[in-house]
Amino acid sequence: MEIKKDVSEEVVRERITKLQEAMRASAMDGFLLTQNIDLYYYTGSMQNGYAFIPSHGEPVFFVKRSLERAKLESGISVKELGAFRLFGETLAREYPQVFKAGTGKPAAVAADLDVLPAQTYLKLSGLLQGAGAGPIVDGSVIIRKQRMIKSTLEISRFESAAAVVDEALNEALNFLKPGVTELEWMARVEYELRIRGHIGLMRMRGYNQEIATGMFIAGSAAAVPTYFDGPAGGLGLGATSPQSVSRKAIERNEPILMDIGCCIDGYVIDQTRTAVIGELPEKLAHAYNVSEAIIREAENGMVQGAICSALYARALEQAEDAGLSPHFMGYGADQAKFLGHGIGLEIDEWPVLAKGFDIPLEAGMVIAVEPKFTFPGDGVVGIENSYLITDGRPRALTFTREGLIKLP
Amino acid sequence: MEIKKDVSEEVVRERITKLQEAMRASAMDGFLLTQNIDLYYYTGSMQNGYAFIPSHGEPVFFVKRSLERAKLESGISVKELGAFRLFGETLAREYPQVFKAGTGKPAAVAADLDVLPAQTYLKLSGLLQGAGAGPIVDGSVIIRKQRMIKSTLEISRFESAAAVVDEALNEALNFLKPGVTELEWMARVEYELRIRGHIGLMRMRGYNQEIATGMFIAGSAAAVPTYFDGPAGGLGLGATSPQSVSRKAIERNEPILMDIGCCIDGYVIDQTRTAVIGELPEKLAHAYNVSEAIIREAENGMVQGAICSALYARALEQAEDAGLSPHFMGYGADQAKFLGHGIGLEIDEWPVLAKGFDIPLEAGMVIAVEPKFTFPGDGVVGIENSYLITDGRPRALTFTREGLIKLP
Repeated sequence: MEIKKDVSEEVVRERITKLQEAMRASAMDGFLLTQNIDLYYYTGSMQNGYAFIPSHGEPVFFVKRSLERAKLESGISVKELGAFRLFGETLAREYPQVFKAGTGKPAAVAADLDVLPAQTYLKLSGLLQGAGAGPIVDGSVIIRKQRMIKSTLEISRFESAAAVVDEALNEALNFLKPGVTELEWMARVEYELRIRGHIGLMRMRGYNQEIATGMFIAGSAAAVPTYFDGPAGGLGLGATSPQSVSRKAIERNEPILMDIGCCIDGYVIDQTRTAVIGELPEKLAHAYNVSEAIIREAENGMVQGAICSALYARALEQAEDAGLSPHFMGYGADQAKFLGHGIGLEIDEWPVLAKGFDIPLEAGMVIAVEPKFTFPGDGVVGIENSYLITDGRPRALTFTREGLIKLP
Repeated sequence: MEIKKDVSEEVVRERITKLQEAMRASAMDGFLLTQNIDLYYYTGSMQNGYAFIPSHGEPVFFVKRSLERAKLESGISVKELGAFRLFGETLAREYPQVFKAGTGKPAAVAADLDVLPAQTYLKLSGLLQGAGAGPIVDGSVIIRKQRMIKSTLEISRFESAAAVVDEALNEALNFLKPGVTELEWMARVEYELRIRGHIGLMRMRGYNQEIATGMFIAGSAAAVPTYFDGPAGGLGLGATSPQSVSRKAIERNEPILMDIGCCIDGYVIDQTRTAVIGELPEKLAHAYNVSEAIIREAENGMVQGAICSALYARALEQAEDAGLSPHFMGYGADQAKFLGHGIGLEIDEWPVLAKGFDIPLEAGMVIAVEPKFTFPGDGVVGIENSYLITDGRPRALTFTREGLIKLP
């Protein structure tokens, strides 16, 4: 079968050049990429191995498996990893300008320590220090910063994903009737997503976080708090899957939160709509309107140079003005502390619209903005779109009709 | 909504008592559990936080989110985690018998370092050392060993999962026709799995490994090697999902490998069957028969006391006797080096039927045995069942009809 390059060598070269610039600015001599997503971004391939990027010179993807496939996919040079215990020597031989054992000048090598398991980190540290490096330093910040800015190629994949979510949601809405369980409806929307190319899961960088396609949660079950680092939780299928769908049947006149995403050609999209069969209670209908007002205000504010934390602060203000502060982004002690999050190859990218994130927006960022309100016992309402920051107003990448979706 | 305890306090207490025995045998004073699956196994809850198990005395689950839910789910004491930067002091206050700063006797604290990201490991190490501990040691081996032996409760969950896979597979077989793509059929079987309670993904402990429901791969696309640490790979949906299903249409007279699993109430099951629409070429039909002969031999050999590596060696012998060594468990450089693997809360548990795994089988182990043969350009054939080791012959937990599934 034909294995195609997913990104061109030029794209890979550009990404690596930018990484090397950031490395030199941080006095790093080399970067060891270990995670599948990081490997894909900088090589074009997520085969099993380690890519070494020197601050000057040519990178190499050292592959364990599949070497054959990596050679077809990678935009950088591919070599066989060989015995893991000899990896330090392999690197020293390949990069004598970086590893100068015995000169008293240990090489500063970084890795993606926010995801690399400690056990492997300790082994790699030992091998690299034996080859003349200092302790491996955490380079995840410069990777996450670089990946904030998306290219035209990447934007086109978000667009494909947004179209898939829209089609799948509209198809599945035909099956939304009282008595259908959250699980049954989710199975239907997941089927519609999958036949359109969803890879089956949405990748997350955060430890212990997992998500296949999102949440479809209704009424009181939606408002159950959970460990998931988002504004809505869900009763889930029990303690072993304590989030998202449960076996609760959908009822009339209760809020139905449809926080649905997918991953197409590597890129995730994130969109939420709220539906009701019948009529929402006044309190919830009001809160839904406030969520739309907050997202409109965010659209006005998300221009180049706007500060992420200020956008979050403005949303908090709006929630407070509406008398809904305790319900905003979760309830009470279980409130999530953000308004939006970067998306890309992973669902939890940077920037985050949150306190402490005092960086300015730049054109090319893609951010999911998701104002939501939780009412224990009643449910969750809200809206979410994914936006591309441009040199003018933000461009919504998600486009399913807005407004409360009312079904008869 | 009602949050129910998933395992009783008695079960949790038993598991913790066993862990404490193993800790004392390894001279560990405390164990810090960090991963969601490890937390669930030893507390009954996978909320966000850290559980501390002293070698003597009462464990505590320190929870960040959701505290409310953890209190309802956990079989051990739950306390609020509080500020992360003060976690060392919190532990020292709670466990003065473990953390004796200034006495010159640093506490030996272990953690699940095979999964804990290095960045968090380094922060936790700093906090714990400030509180009087030595460097955190890797305790993952004792967790993985303990979890090898399953209880009656756990077995009943595998049985539920096996029933779901059987039903879903039989339903989906109605849609298996020439021209249907791998992706389309997979979407169908995933729908059938999901409405029966599959949580949406199958958890893996290995770094960079991911799987939603398994592989449905046919003909030449099935034989494409990939990074996935298993005997079959698959063309996949591109470099960003380089395994399992592709958009290849199913053809007549080619092998169709249906390696399908699911996760029910936390427990995964793993089963493979081979199908063909029409007739298999003689070479592949022969290889399929050899895979059945290997699994029959494994059934005879998997008794208490049998050595894991010897079972693998015997399968290698059978493959060699059949003249199929280069095709066994992948082809050439991309061969997987095992015959079977433990399953449980994760798909890649212990023991592994592989070289170097020189431990004896014990009653209560659950192992997926999956002899397969890969023919580049032609496809993959094989069979897989999940077995419970007993005090007699192994009991197959998977029960879908065996033999090559021939469709007209």
